[in-house]
Amino acid sequence: MTVSSFDHPFLSGFLGDEETAGVFSAKADLDAMLAFEAALAGAEGAAGVIPSDAATAIEDAIAGFRPDISALRDATARDGVVVPELVKQLRRAAGVHGDHVHFGATSQDVIDTGLALRLGKLLTLFAERLHTLDAALADLDERFGRLEVMAHTRMQAAIAVPASRKIASWRDPLARCGERLPGVRDDVAILHFGGAAGTQDKLGNKAGAVTEGLAQRLGLAVPQRARHSERDGIAGYASWLSVVTGSLGKIGQDIALMAQSEVGEIRLARGGGSSAMPHKVNPVSAEALVALARFNATLVAGMHQALVHENERSGAAWTLEWLILPQMTVATGAALRIAAELLAAISFSGRN
Amino acid sequence: MTVSSFDHPFLSGFLGDEETAGVFSAKADLDAMLAFEAALAGAEGAAGVIPSDAATAIEDAIAGFRPDISALRDATARDGVVVPELVKQLRRAAGVHGDHVHFGATSQDVIDTGLALRLGKLLTLFAERLHTLDAALADLDERFGRLEVMAHTRMQAAIAVPASRKIASWRDPLARCGERLPGVRDDVAILHFGGAAGTQDKLGNKAGAVTEGLAQRLGLAVPQRARHSERDGIAGYASWLSVVTGSLGKIGQDIALMAQSEVGEIRLARGGGSSAMPHKVNPVSAEALVALARFNATLVAGMHQALVHENERSGAAWTLEWLILPQMTVATGAALRIAAELLAAISFSGRN
Amino acid sequence: MTVSSFDHPFLSGFLGDEETAGVFSAKADLDAMLAFEAALAGAEGAAGVIPSDAATAIEDAIAGFRPDISALRDATARDGVVVPELVKQLRRAAGVHGDHVHFGATSQDVIDTGLALRLGKLLTLFAERLHTLDAALADLDERFGRLEVMAHTRMQAAIAVPASRKIASWRDPLARCGERLPGVRDDVAILHFGGAAGTQDKLGNKAGAVTEGLAQRLGLAVPQRARHSERDGIAGYASWLSVVTGSLGKIGQDIALMAQSEVGEIRLARGGGSSAMPHKVNPVSAEALVALARFNATLVAGMHQALVHENERSGAAWTLEWLILPQMTVATGAALRIAAELLAAISFSGRN
Amino acid sequence: MTVSSFDHPFLSGFLGDEETAGVFSAKADLDAMLAFEAALAGAEGAAGVIPSDAATAIEDAIAGFRPDISALRDATARDGVVVPELVKQLRRAAGVHGDHVHFGATSQDVIDTGLALRLGKLLTLFAERLHTLDAALADLDERFGRLEVMAHTRMQAAIAVPASRKIASWRDPLARCGERLPGVRDDVAILHFGGAAGTQDKLGNKAGAVTEGLAQRLGLAVPQRARHSERDGIAGYASWLSVVTGSLGKIGQDIALMAQSEVGEIRLARGGGSSAMPHKVNPVSAEALVALARFNATLVAGMHQALVHENERSGAAWTLEWLILPQMTVATGAALRIAAELLAAISFSGRN
Repeated sequence: MTVSSFDHPFLSGFLGDEETAGVFSAKADLDAMLAFEAALAGAEGAAGVIPSDAATAIEDAIAGFRPDISALRDATARDGVVVPELVKQLRRAAGVHGDHVHFGATSQDVIDTGLALRLGKLLTLFAERLHTLDAALADLDERFGRLEVMAHTRMQAAIAVPASRKIASWRDPLARCGERLPGVRDDVAILHFGGAAGTQDKLGNKAGAVTEGLAQRLGLAVPQRARHSERDGIAGYASWLSVVTGSLGKIGQDIALMAQSEVGEIRLARGGGSSAMPHKVNPVSAEALVALARFNATLVAGMHQALVHENERSGAAWTLEWLILPQMTVATGAALRIAAELLAAISFSGRN
Repeated sequence: MTVSSFDHPFLSGFLGDEETAGVFSAKADLDAMLAFEAALAGAEGAAGVIPSDAATAIEDAIAGFRPDISALRDATARDGVVVPELVKQLRRAAGVHGDHVHFGATSQDVIDTGLALRLGKLLTLFAERLHTLDAALADLDERFGRLEVMAHTRMQAAIAVPASRKIASWRDPLARCGERLPGVRDDVAILHFGGAAGTQDKLGNKAGAVTEGLAQRLGLAVPQRARHSERDGIAGYASWLSVVTGSLGKIGQDIALMAQSEVGEIRLARGGGSSAMPHKVNPVSAEALVALARFNATLVAGMHQALVHENERSGAAWTLEWLILPQMTVATGAALRIAAELLAAISFSGRN
Repeated sequence: MTVSSFDHPFLSGFLGDEETAGVFSAKADLDAMLAFEAALAGAEGAAGVIPSDAATAIEDAIAGFRPDISALRDATARDGVVVPELVKQLRRAAGVHGDHVHFGATSQDVIDTGLALRLGKLLTLFAERLHTLDAALADLDERFGRLEVMAHTRMQAAIAVPASRKIASWRDPLARCGERLPGVRDDVAILHFGGAAGTQDKLGNKAGAVTEGLAQRLGLAVPQRARHSERDGIAGYASWLSVVTGSLGKIGQDIALMAQSEVGEIRLARGGGSSAMPHKVNPVSAEALVALARFNATLVAGMHQALVHENERSGAAWTLEWLILPQMTVATGAALRIAAELLAAISFSGRN
Repeated sequence: MTVSSFDHPFLSGFLGDEETAGVFSAKADLDAMLAFEAALAGAEGAAGVIPSDAATAIEDAIAGFRPDISALRDATARDGVVVPELVKQLRRAAGVHGDHVHFGATSQDVIDTGLALRLGKLLTLFAERLHTLDAALADLDERFGRLEVMAHTRMQAAIAVPASRKIASWRDPLARCGERLPGVRDDVAILHFGGAAGTQDKLGNKAGAVTEGLAQRLGLAVPQRARHSERDGIAGYASWLSVVTGSLGKIGQDIALMAQSEVGEIRLARGGGSSAMPHKVNPVSAEALVALARFNATLVAGMHQALVHENERSGAAWTLEWLILPQMTVATGAALRIAAELLAAISFSGRN
């Protein structure tokens, strides 16, 4: 099935991004959750919370583990969350040591940490792509910056400006997005480990040691307390995504306007063909940037609604995040990809 | 890849709906577009716009047609729309008659009519599901309606009311959604056939005959003019979906509140298990209804943004619809499914 | 204070609409609530629920009533709703008959019915304005419809079409909005009268008679049951507003594009001046239509979020409506006003 | 007129915040714009761009200037922006020196800088209020932190936790909002001074000196280039506002749930009264926090839509900001105020 354009057999060629979408495959999701469970066993073994041979056995079991996806699906339908069944399967795989699997953890620890691991990597990818776009814009500036193009205010021709000025107005916001990225990463690439209700109630005086060991194994920062019900970091991440796509959408809108038949200040080396009018070169990449910007601008509202996360864990607000966040992320990956392709295909045609 | 919870190998067990999602498979999409092209050839053959043997040959070619999905994907990446490549493949399949394929039509005719065909069927399914829910609520009323439960206003106990009153406040909005459905269908289950810019410019005085024949073959109503750039119907459809899921979300929220450990006015025959607290019976279906309501309430904004559909065809606004509409529809199908399961699993426990 | 552009001393000249905004003045709000209380007393007197001289005395007291606004403000800060203090003031005004004021009613009855009364009138105004716009578009068609203008698809010149075709794509959606209006009115211009928790618990076997009498006095339809917690009607109204403004936003976007310096297919008889570039004629009305469309498209999401109205009355969801609905309504009134002015000021300049 | 709850004669007592709303009064707006014009004259006089006696005369004229509001309103209706008429009035006031008023500036310089000045001050106020809330939460922790309360996950009782844990989950997100505030300020409290199309075209080699002098006079940072069409800073500010209100909304939701009649883990010293049920103590402040959170979560989408700011100045996207930003800001001020009042009125009642 292919409800989402990002997963769609042919639409994803236009609107998707394989590299980003791969981060949200079921396999990547499971791998990250298993990494959590293995690191937890390792850290608990090292801290003496579980026997060290149990820890080793669990790590080995996870290394060779093949989940029963069909059973995961049925159980998720019942439990609203995949972890209870996943832990059950892991316990079976760990044999006599099974009782030590997932000790002191809760579903949200596993799922949110698994997401944190993946978003951390993704932000590295996005940083690279922003860097690539910056270079592409520098190159455009080098090639066309001295040309004069018409500035337009309120949809009317205003005065002529160097193309350089226009390119800077595309480049600077992306540069600032790049500067804000580390702060965003600090808020999402963190360990979630609070147990049933955020108090690490089963770990007694070993809580600190296990937490540190777990975070170290996973390469994640440790917040002072688990943030199960505190969603400001993830809402900030979503907001950042939407600022990135909005900044790219502005570029797309500008290019579509400058490439209008009657304006012609930008030429597209290639564009979309039409089934009815073979003469057309449609600025479909530019339009896609606008669509993805408006898509994320729409969805960001839902991530902010999810800030009203009641009590120690809200099934409703958390599920809402699942429905939205992967899409916003892939929309951003796609917009970064499309923008790079588009900028490589345009040339300015102003006056020297 | 599985960016969307609705397509996800295990999350879709919880949040998805196979029957609805099937309508948005690439196969269903292609089938509907091919139905348009076949019907167009048939209608144009009957009206003498294309030779009747060409019409027959095209219909036959479509009947045995197997699209090259990989080529469709590559071309959609380039054209922003699948139709030019699909038509190219169809022309090849139709051999010497290929030039008569897609005569006088444009991409949007094919895609929007294909969607109209599928939404028309889906609305029949949704009507049935609303009817089923009505029966389930009537049954709950029959069984528990005379019990007294506590009414709550502003999150405080108010006065006791018959459960019947509460059940009516769940049932009546769904009944009204059912009553509004035919009007929604009239606005979406329509033929789109305007050609390049909505004027059927290639059909001369045969435009009316072809349009009528095409609509008749497809079982769709004929609007006075093609509505390529007029998106009020589709925005109205999205609004209706969100009113349905919002009405179901209210039920979910009420059930989650009544099933609270401290309230206990509703019991769940089954619920979600917890990986940390085996004693719990989590109202995960009720929470899912809230999440799906807030999801659609978020997305409906994007469909209304898409009303600003510039000129004769906006690639940006139209693409935005593709990103949103299938998800809103499947969220609605899922909410209807989940609500039916939830209502079958609850019992009231007020005073007699 | 002037947080809202619609109330702002100078911005409201551009973005506001006095006639619509007047409906949301505190005076109009109070007048409508007082009309409810007077009609309630009248109906209860006629039905023998309260003494008929009490009814007359209350009606008289209301006729001469001057609310203490400062006390209303203080009490609303405390109660979250104005009605308890308003009723207290009314009781004082009614002297010995004071105990019979507001008998069997609750805050939501008063406020929601007060809103229903005002929205009912407003929809009449909006119907008239839609009619006016239709006439203006017919006039444009008459004057310019035979000119050829360039159709644009995906931001590129496509083929020439008669201006008539373009005008029809503006006119038809508004006509359909007009056709949908009576259904919207039927869902909002209704009596709300349920008492504390929607069961009219204090009225016994007189409930029906009082309800009928109250509705008749107010000129509102009577739903089968009070819909305190059922917000589908009001969400549908908000959706309709946003479809109206979205349809006007499409017109604004088209005009701004056609009036571009490089396109020049539409001329503006007047437009906005610039502080830096005196030569400019900015299409500010066209831009305002786009802004108002996107504003309502944003806000409609909040009205749909408010569908998740928990229990018998949700303070949170209901308050959210108060924050949003007046603005959406005035934005619609303003867009209708601005569109009329804009259409009177444009001329097409295509080829004959 | 009183379309907005924040300006409303009695609703503002509940939902408004005078101190914040004052920042958006027409007077505060005009004062800030006049400060720009005065500082511009001063800086241009100092740099030798305009005669120094003209600069002094303009500064004096502005010091005694009384705008004709009615004329501003009429002109804004025509120009879509207040500045051309304001400058005209200023020129008249400056007599023979009038031609030197507003030299090299454009409307957006004046309006956006005026907003930057006001938001800069407001962020200081918000920082103080966040600090006050932190102290209030520390006080609650001191008084009640050792009590045991029930943790709830997925709307079901989970395990007992110290109230301290719950209070920390309210306090930490607000602390992080406080830490993010300086970064937000750096993106909004900046000078906007680009002239007609962002190139300071009229200032030649004096551009740098005037810009520096202007910024110094206004106490604003100078970005490398004017950011007329780059809205990432303002979108980031809006996102931050919504994270603040969302974090407060979570507190409100938790309090409303804990104060439920059947739960009783939080008592309210005072609450809202009911017109139908005098026994009730409604948690109206808690509900208001939820409503304001959902309101801002709705509106933030519109600010992100406005990132698609076409060309050198988009009337549509900029106007959309005017419609949204003041409200989001006042909603935040109100939520901070209400939260402080609410936290002062609650007590926990768990077990020792």
